[in-house]
Amino acid sequence: MLERVDYAEGETRLTGWFAAPAGGEAAPGVLVAHEAPGMGAHVKAAAERLAQAGYAALALDLYGGEGFTLEDARRRHQEMMETPGLMARRAGAGLAALRAQPRVDSARLAALGFCQGGITALELARAGAPILAAIGFHPGLKRPDGSPDTPIGAKVLMMIGDADPVVPPEDRLAFARAMDAAEADWQLHLYGGVGHSFTNPHVDALGFPGFAYDARAARRAWGSAMALLVEVFQ
Amino acid sequence: MLERVDYAEGETRLTGWFAAPAGGEAAPGVLVAHEAPGMGAHVKAAAERLAQAGYAALALDLYGGEGFTLEDARRRHQEMMETPGLMARRAGAGLAALRAQPRVDSARLAALGFCQGGITALELARAGAPILAAIGFHPGLKRPDGSPDTPIGAKVLMMIGDADPVVPPEDRLAFARAMDAAEADWQLHLYGGVGHSFTNPHVDALGFPGFAYDARAARRAWGSAMALLVEVFQ
Repeated sequence: MLERVDYAEGETRLTGWFAAPAGGEAAPGVLVAHEAPGMGAHVKAAAERLAQAGYAALALDLYGGEGFTLEDARRRHQEMMETPGLMARRAGAGLAALRAQPRVDSARLAALGFCQGGITALELARAGAPILAAIGFHPGLKRPDGSPDTPIGAKVLMMIGDADPVVPPEDRLAFARAMDAAEADWQLHLYGGVGHSFTNPHVDALGFPGFAYDARAARRAWGSAMALLVEVFQ
Repeated sequence: MLERVDYAEGETRLTGWFAAPAGGEAAPGVLVAHEAPGMGAHVKAAAERLAQAGYAALALDLYGGEGFTLEDARRRHQEMMETPGLMARRAGAGLAALRAQPRVDSARLAALGFCQGGITALELARAGAPILAAIGFHPGLKRPDGSPDTPIGAKVLMMIGDADPVVPPEDRLAFARAMDAAEADWQLHLYGGVGHSFTNPHVDALGFPGFAYDARAARRAWGSAMALLVEVFQ
């Protein structure tokens, strides 16, 4: 079950959605970062699924609210990409909100995200947030303006459809070199013939070329993400 | 416990090593293909580990025997790469030897290999052998002469150190395009900063540049391989 969590970053009011496993024990905390269209059913479902897997999860809010038009969301996405430090600050506020929940083990934290949310998880790692893993499902690999070249302590796992038009091979190579420069422990998993947004059953309805749900890749990627969470939280 | 299995391909006598789970039930069969230096402790240990995981496993023999000098093994590796069809035939004989073992479920078969053995698993898939998965740990991705451009029905998983000098980025791209052309369901997992032969604790002693054992990558790769076996054998 999801609980509404109201928090803020500076003057901006934000609304996250929290899910925790049944029972009274402290659980590792996982931050869930939304796609460019903003907070919605997809990340809320991921938070609930994480709770079922034994984690306390907060679907964070980068934009302030939900239900934006595609055009409005695009503008907000641009703002995130073009305002140095903004994405990391907003994500950091989400992390603080997660840690403030009862029964969250603040020594065991991770961040994962979908599409833009993969960038968000990485920027949080670059900002030195105390997360043990930064995981991206079909992430964009573009970096926001001002993205710092700092060492990355979080273990990084990015999972990409090889046919994803949003992340061409040159972006993957640039990612690899940037991760090496940041001395990161990183993994990149490629799925043959798979397009962008492969975890989202509703993406096909948008009709964007190269975007396609793929249940098999989604299952595999979820399994790899869970394996990394087990590894870092052990 | 390993059992010696003598078999042949044409006039060539071969010796494989078989391990099966305890108990009397039929188990899925997994073929294990050795590195370029030939049959040895590494693949025998993998067969035993597979048996512990519930699979009937045969470490196959491509060369006929074991304990070759590095120079002799290199010559045999060259023969495999330059004789059209030879590697697939030798591996096919291994698969037949596996299926001939008692309690092997011939409807559920897979092949995995290390280094050259990754090529072997792929060639077996290209030859149309009834394997459900072809898995490579730090495989070479070069193709033997005459390697056919046939459709691949087996699910393919290749796991490579990003710093592996044996498999440069251009070989990875060529692999991706060949897999797409073969209409394969394929995955490529890259591990940042990891070199060649990362599963082999004894490789460091050889002193080859870019070859290095990596316990963490080895654990992750084994986990991904097990996940694919569960997927195809379910």
